[in-house]
Amino acid sequence: MSFTGDKRISGKEVAQHNSRESCWIVVHGNVYDVTEFLDEHPGGSKIILKYAGKDATQEYDPIHPPDAITTNLPPQKHLGPVEPDTVQKVEIKITDEEQARQERISNRPALDEILNLHDFEAIARQVMSEKAWAYYSSAADDEITNRENHAAYHRVWFRPRILRDVTKVDWSTTILGQRSSMPVYITATALGKLGHPDGELNLTRAAAKHGVIQMIPTLASCSFDEIIDAAQPGQVQFFQLYVNKDRNITKRIVQHAEQRGIKGLFITVDAPQLGRREKDMRMKFEAEDPSEVSKAGSGGVDRSQGAARAISSFIDPGLKWCDLDWFKSITKMPLILKGVQCWEDALQAYDLGLTGVVLSNHGGRQLDFARSGLEVLVEVVDKLKEKRGLMFPNEKFQLFVDGGVRRATDVLKAVALGATAVGVGRPFLYAFSAYGLEGVDKALQILQDEFEMNLRLLGAPTIKDIVSEMVDASNIHSHVVAVPGDRLYESNYESMQHAQLREVKAKM
Amino acid sequence: MSFTGDKRISGKEVAQHNSRESCWIVVHGNVYDVTEFLDEHPGGSKIILKYAGKDATQEYDPIHPPDAITTNLPPQKHLGPVEPDTVQKVEIKITDEEQARQERISNRPALDEILNLHDFEAIARQVMSEKAWAYYSSAADDEITNRENHAAYHRVWFRPRILRDVTKVDWSTTILGQRSSMPVYITATALGKLGHPDGELNLTRAAAKHGVIQMIPTLASCSFDEIIDAAQPGQVQFFQLYVNKDRNITKRIVQHAEQRGIKGLFITVDAPQLGRREKDMRMKFEAEDPSEVSKAGSGGVDRSQGAARAISSFIDPGLKWCDLDWFKSITKMPLILKGVQCWEDALQAYDLGLTGVVLSNHGGRQLDFARSGLEVLVEVVDKLKEKRGLMFPNEKFQLFVDGGVRRATDVLKAVALGATAVGVGRPFLYAFSAYGLEGVDKALQILQDEFEMNLRLLGAPTIKDIVSEMVDASNIHSHVVAVPGDRLYESNYESMQHAQLREVKAKM
Amino acid sequence: MSFTGDKRISGKEVAQHNSRESCWIVVHGNVYDVTEFLDEHPGGSKIILKYAGKDATQEYDPIHPPDAITTNLPPQKHLGPVEPDTVQKVEIKITDEEQARQERISNRPALDEILNLHDFEAIARQVMSEKAWAYYSSAADDEITNRENHAAYHRVWFRPRILRDVTKVDWSTTILGQRSSMPVYITATALGKLGHPDGELNLTRAAAKHGVIQMIPTLASCSFDEIIDAAQPGQVQFFQLYVNKDRNITKRIVQHAEQRGIKGLFITVDAPQLGRREKDMRMKFEAEDPSEVSKAGSGGVDRSQGAARAISSFIDPGLKWCDLDWFKSITKMPLILKGVQCWEDALQAYDLGLTGVVLSNHGGRQLDFARSGLEVLVEVVDKLKEKRGLMFPNEKFQLFVDGGVRRATDVLKAVALGATAVGVGRPFLYAFSAYGLEGVDKALQILQDEFEMNLRLLGAPTIKDIVSEMVDASNIHSHVVAVPGDRLYESNYESMQHAQLREVKAKM
Amino acid sequence: MSFTGDKRISGKEVAQHNSRESCWIVVHGNVYDVTEFLDEHPGGSKIILKYAGKDATQEYDPIHPPDAITTNLPPQKHLGPVEPDTVQKVEIKITDEEQARQERISNRPALDEILNLHDFEAIARQVMSEKAWAYYSSAADDEITNRENHAAYHRVWFRPRILRDVTKVDWSTTILGQRSSMPVYITATALGKLGHPDGELNLTRAAAKHGVIQMIPTLASCSFDEIIDAAQPGQVQFFQLYVNKDRNITKRIVQHAEQRGIKGLFITVDAPQLGRREKDMRMKFEAEDPSEVSKAGSGGVDRSQGAARAISSFIDPGLKWCDLDWFKSITKMPLILKGVQCWEDALQAYDLGLTGVVLSNHGGRQLDFARSGLEVLVEVVDKLKEKRGLMFPNEKFQLFVDGGVRRATDVLKAVALGATAVGVGRPFLYAFSAYGLEGVDKALQILQDEFEMNLRLLGAPTIKDIVSEMVDASNIHSHVVAVPGDRLYESNYESMQHAQLREVKAKM
Repeated sequence: MSFTGDKRISGKEVAQHNSRESCWIVVHGNVYDVTEFLDEHPGGSKIILKYAGKDATQEYDPIHPPDAITTNLPPQKHLGPVEPDTVQKVEIKITDEEQARQERISNRPALDEILNLHDFEAIARQVMSEKAWAYYSSAADDEITNRENHAAYHRVWFRPRILRDVTKVDWSTTILGQRSSMPVYITATALGKLGHPDGELNLTRAAAKHGVIQMIPTLASCSFDEIIDAAQPGQVQFFQLYVNKDRNITKRIVQHAEQRGIKGLFITVDAPQLGRREKDMRMKFEAEDPSEVSKAGSGGVDRSQGAARAISSFIDPGLKWCDLDWFKSITKMPLILKGVQCWEDALQAYDLGLTGVVLSNHGGRQLDFARSGLEVLVEVVDKLKEKRGLMFPNEKFQLFVDGGVRRATDVLKAVALGATAVGVGRPFLYAFSAYGLEGVDKALQILQDEFEMNLRLLGAPTIKDIVSEMVDASNIHSHVVAVPGDRLYESNYESMQHAQLREVKAKM
Repeated sequence: MSFTGDKRISGKEVAQHNSRESCWIVVHGNVYDVTEFLDEHPGGSKIILKYAGKDATQEYDPIHPPDAITTNLPPQKHLGPVEPDTVQKVEIKITDEEQARQERISNRPALDEILNLHDFEAIARQVMSEKAWAYYSSAADDEITNRENHAAYHRVWFRPRILRDVTKVDWSTTILGQRSSMPVYITATALGKLGHPDGELNLTRAAAKHGVIQMIPTLASCSFDEIIDAAQPGQVQFFQLYVNKDRNITKRIVQHAEQRGIKGLFITVDAPQLGRREKDMRMKFEAEDPSEVSKAGSGGVDRSQGAARAISSFIDPGLKWCDLDWFKSITKMPLILKGVQCWEDALQAYDLGLTGVVLSNHGGRQLDFARSGLEVLVEVVDKLKEKRGLMFPNEKFQLFVDGGVRRATDVLKAVALGATAVGVGRPFLYAFSAYGLEGVDKALQILQDEFEMNLRLLGAPTIKDIVSEMVDASNIHSHVVAVPGDRLYESNYESMQHAQLREVKAKM
Repeated sequence: MSFTGDKRISGKEVAQHNSRESCWIVVHGNVYDVTEFLDEHPGGSKIILKYAGKDATQEYDPIHPPDAITTNLPPQKHLGPVEPDTVQKVEIKITDEEQARQERISNRPALDEILNLHDFEAIARQVMSEKAWAYYSSAADDEITNRENHAAYHRVWFRPRILRDVTKVDWSTTILGQRSSMPVYITATALGKLGHPDGELNLTRAAAKHGVIQMIPTLASCSFDEIIDAAQPGQVQFFQLYVNKDRNITKRIVQHAEQRGIKGLFITVDAPQLGRREKDMRMKFEAEDPSEVSKAGSGGVDRSQGAARAISSFIDPGLKWCDLDWFKSITKMPLILKGVQCWEDALQAYDLGLTGVVLSNHGGRQLDFARSGLEVLVEVVDKLKEKRGLMFPNEKFQLFVDGGVRRATDVLKAVALGATAVGVGRPFLYAFSAYGLEGVDKALQILQDEFEMNLRLLGAPTIKDIVSEMVDASNIHSHVVAVPGDRLYESNYESMQHAQLREVKAKM
Repeated sequence: MSFTGDKRISGKEVAQHNSRESCWIVVHGNVYDVTEFLDEHPGGSKIILKYAGKDATQEYDPIHPPDAITTNLPPQKHLGPVEPDTVQKVEIKITDEEQARQERISNRPALDEILNLHDFEAIARQVMSEKAWAYYSSAADDEITNRENHAAYHRVWFRPRILRDVTKVDWSTTILGQRSSMPVYITATALGKLGHPDGELNLTRAAAKHGVIQMIPTLASCSFDEIIDAAQPGQVQFFQLYVNKDRNITKRIVQHAEQRGIKGLFITVDAPQLGRREKDMRMKFEAEDPSEVSKAGSGGVDRSQGAARAISSFIDPGLKWCDLDWFKSITKMPLILKGVQCWEDALQAYDLGLTGVVLSNHGGRQLDFARSGLEVLVEVVDKLKEKRGLMFPNEKFQLFVDGGVRRATDVLKAVALGATAVGVGRPFLYAFSAYGLEGVDKALQILQDEFEMNLRLLGAPTIKDIVSEMVDASNIHSHVVAVPGDRLYESNYESMQHAQLREVKAKM
């Protein structure tokens, strides 16, 4: 970081720049002039103005990488270090709700009582801030696709085999040529610090311990280098890329990633614009005076649309197939498209020589009524066999799926249907939001245990023994909606009752 | 308006004509002798007799166009203006329920907090009078078709495309050769003043602002000319027609509409008799003494059947295919049949040279277990391709769909399947019932925002890029009813519980 | 009735015969010695012993035809008339529950507020005795078939036609060559007096008024002749027959029916043993001391199994196809099998020259998981066309359906699929249980109104215009059971919330 | 049993060996040194240490056969009899919960009020200890398969026949050549004493009375010989085998079984590792301090995983197809594989000359999303007909099904589809947990009654008349998941209301 001077600025002086006309803030002990940046701030000017003339670090940290401010502000706006202990603190009142939340945190069950990935979500929902919960859990429109992602797994059933020697079972595999202890990777999710101060580093560290691969997100709240630096020697990491309208920025990011050892570049293609996530948006209204939110929106980016859209202004909606040649020209990393949703696009990716595709709908956060990755997988495997004679899983062109996974059985269904591996996102966020690094460690351990169990029960000593005949996916394309209920008939129907204890009967 | 004399009549004199034998009422300051009209009144004699000898304006306004009384009563029954301030007012007591409703109105959330069309309905339900809510929301019999209209959209899923330049997206289109800013029109719905004093004018004004087309209903509570007059120069409007048994009346209406610039005539063919809508009927019983309602019914039209049937006596159930030639002879407007429900009738409309059909079941308000327009669309597109080689959307023969639409994604599904545009009705009624003109404006803005987003996410720069391969409608004809539940088994099953906070556990 | 003497017996003398050793009871003013009949009584000895030495008329009436006792007891056990006012009354305590029920009866809504057949059931459930409700509403095992009967109609959807002249619509038809004002008949149901003192006579009288046909049940609580006598001149009635093990009894019943003018004999073939109806059985336990009930059961008929099984001991489980020739030899009435459940048996009935079959599962009261009559209808029509070239509806071999009907639309679906007419049972029981004769009259009027409406909306001027192309029954054979829910996932999912009023929000 | 000495040991001396270093316990009046066994105990050391130096009989009995301790401990650790009345009792506090449970037990309804198998479960759930309920009722992962087992029966519907002489009906059959009074056997389930002190003997005795066959489980809490000894002369029993890693132990068990007259050996092949059953696991945490549970787990077997996994350490996950020849070499008993889940494995069993297979998923307790036995049955019957020309039921190669059965109709569906007989497990456990031997007797009587009724209603005088044409199983492979609900739409929809009593309306 470079500063225009190294004189220390007094808190008193900072405090005078507390208006839209002249707005200084302190972050990590340094003073920044953000007056001209106010209207460009993806999160809106209002939130900055709240800290005008004051220390904004506490608000800044959970949603920005440390270097976000220095990267985005021109050097002349970096005014220098503040005199310690002179800057005005924004007094943060502990609300009753926050106090209740703190109590809930101290009442978390012991980690040993967590039996499955659902449990992390149940606890996280109670111990996270409402804002963080809303950002992580929300999805597009009516959240139909979000839930369909999980529901689709319930339409695939197992055909297990017996009397095979499963004394030793091995569920490790390779992903893009890299070893992984299981056919799962930690997929990219934004704003990790909303859930835990260490943010994405929790994932890096747990991934190292368990030999799984982390995909680093463009929108991490830790900086890319922090995450890379937290990795163990030899630890494999992938990188998820939002392509910037300014291709120079993109080139710099990509080449830096390659230089730091990233083993696969996952280019997000399902988010030319970030989705409307209404739970997240409603949370904004709860938190702030809605009329203010709305007024603030007049200057371009609409600040009323929650965290998701605030951070999306730099994504290029003009990205096209022909840009992929350019990517090949700037990096040797394997290129994978993240967010493919029909066989035609998977085929085109294959024909262009890419290394693979992630069949994903962005966790249900983009287009509602997009189909689940699992369903698209079946279609892609069928059609790429028909059109190009490909068999899956396939080393040359790898298929990935993400969204809705909660059990090792889910993963094994995708593997049986042709996926190389499955991305898991929210469950790990909930794990660290509830229990930090130990949570993610435990979540991975649960998956390991489930894999061991399920390989035995399927009669499959290794991942290669998980073949398509082991599942019945004939219902995968069935989108069933019940005929609306006959409310009059149903309200007249008297439900069957089983036998009752005598005293219960007496009371009736 | 013409009056038989211009002497002012005293309220005292009016008050003497307060019986079935001689019944005068005051509307908008004029006195009318309705004695002989009592038994012809579609809404029954009872409601008129309540105002016999008094001022009925307040009751009259929300459900009649201003000219209804002058049009329906012969001139000699128009007795002339009343002396101001002499007429007896019917004292309207503010009930507790009404007071509570007024409080709810003042507690409406700010319009900025309305995120989708569902929200208008949620607020409208709380701030409308029960009578108005019952009339707008009710549907036929068990309301199965009403809900199926929405549910059908959930059986169609997207197959979005990636890596297409969606920097600029354009969702405007043409409907019957007229520009529309989106593939949506405001369809005809009756009795707008039940929800808001400005009634249908709210729709006219918002439509002008957003460049969308309003279909004016025969049963508007504003008069046709009021609605036309409220339009901006060049603003496009369609007209929905109930065909009267007296074809001269119909001819006069149609030619007047053409003369006033109407660009399309939508002839309703699914309502030879207006449906039984039991919620609406029950509301009548709540409001009035049911035995009286029943007695009143003996004289022909049954007044117990709610607002819907009261206004239906003039619709001709004898309308036939061969009448369409007559329509062609009296107007040059494009003719569209509204309420077609199978391919056979769509084909016949095409063969007769009509301009299009609306695949509709009248918002579920007519025949219960009629299929959704969306489902019929799939059948019509298939069969008209097979029988006549037509491709859709088609400029020469346009298909429209209405019923159950709440999201731009719904509209885009219909467009992908071959519809030129989609009619939206109730959501706009709820919008103005909750927030007046600003509500409708916001509702249209929400749709605009959703179209922009969804075109990007679908990879479709324009409406023409929304093609049938972009949806999977293979489940559209599936009407699934679950096998009735095993209540004994289910009541015995102990549901899975996730991990619990310690104090919760202690309490259990 | 014949008596062994005509001396009047004193109540005092009767009172001495109050034990299992010598048991006299008084019914309708006459004394009977039932000592030897105790163990043969289908309803068990216990209930008789309760009235030993006393007047049992009040208990006797609702479940027996008046002549049941004289028919079943040999003449020498008819001891003669009792001296009036000397016989001991069984004091019937009005329980709190009964008092509450009487209040509910006086609070019934006016009949004009009843809008559909569901409404009768809703009121009947509240104003009937629990015992009567349990008997009427109960069905076999888990009552899956009972509910499926109604649900099956929800899998059939309409394809209505437009622009047909429906000014006049006519829904009358002929059934077995007899005129009926609608394609509906009142099917046979047992024990009418449980719901109303006039029992089945309510149905006879209302049927006369509306020109519909009543099927008289073998197990009526009015006597056959009472019901015949209550008919208007020329009123058509059918008769439902349980075939007795003693064919002489059956022959006498059949020939008596023919002699009294019955126009069709419906032989029940789905009840070789009457079903276990657990709601009805549980009601017995509620009402009586269960250990007593059980003990009483040791002597043959098990009295613990509710009203249904108590009355079933005389039905012949040995009835076979070859018996049908015998029926042809004893009567000229048209013979129809009631309770056919697959095409093979319908075909056999046709090949044997019968007049028709009722596709029925006995209202779900016999075999659980029997399919609905509507579903069987589709199969029968398909196969009899394939095997014998028959088209339906068919004058020579008529198909009927019953079970689960609540709306005229239900009836019209069956007619479109080939049924001549549809039997309706429970709704009429509920109608008279709630409102007596006027209830049944109203129920039939509701159906008339619904037929008029629906014929118009379907574009069908007459019943003959209701053809198979007017329905889509492609889902009729689909028995869908949802995959069991993922309770952990669902309990974690936070439901979408719509916009809220401000004060509601404040409270949350 | 042999002891190292016959001097009586004083309770005082025993009490000194109360630590991990030296741990003696008393069981059934004898002293054992279990110090070295602590870490090998499948149920963990913790539970033993609780009784160190004390009498452990009360804890020991419900989950161990009497000879478990003598079999597992080397003779030198059998220290001899304790001096009576000197040993320290572990005082067992009656908790409030236990007291409430005892009250519930005394309030059980009379057995006559139990109408079906569901009722036993309803009562058992209320009167069993939570631990026992958790062990019996729990299943794998999300318990989807567990519930699917029952649900699958709801996708199969009957096609009953009429006019067949069903005066006499006979539902007896033969299973592996042995007579059975019904096509049902009591399948193997573990730890019977958890539910009732007599454990599996309840089943043996009731089986004798009703002429049905009991399959004795390896993991019974009564010893094998106790169960054999409790049988009546000529009573047929089968044996379920978990194959031990030590084949000598297996050989000894198998040959002992044959010697004692076992008529069929059912080798479990679906449990190379016992499943994770989370309800059971959570119960452990409720009962004990979770951190202790976890620590204890470090030494090998994880004691945190409930009763199921604690007893599983001796099952051989290396069992293979080729081991079956060895089985043939050591016994002449018919060999049946229990837990086959696809046609390929059933075919292989047939080709290897086995006598049959049980199509089972272990009551949903092993692999979640395994299909129901009923569904697999349809596939196996189809394929073995196609591949080997087999027809079912088949004397030479018998198919069995278990899981989810609650009604005789369930059994008859399986029989119609080709099963020789159906295994029923949990319902009998619940029967004796609620009512002991009389409960199982009643449960079997209920099934007998249901078979009699259903054979009549199906028109099938004998089991051989139950043929595949009597069922429609066309939906059996349909795994339907509803599209996630539109919560906003649904919360806006106002449900239909039926007519209301006047006073109810007043209150609203």
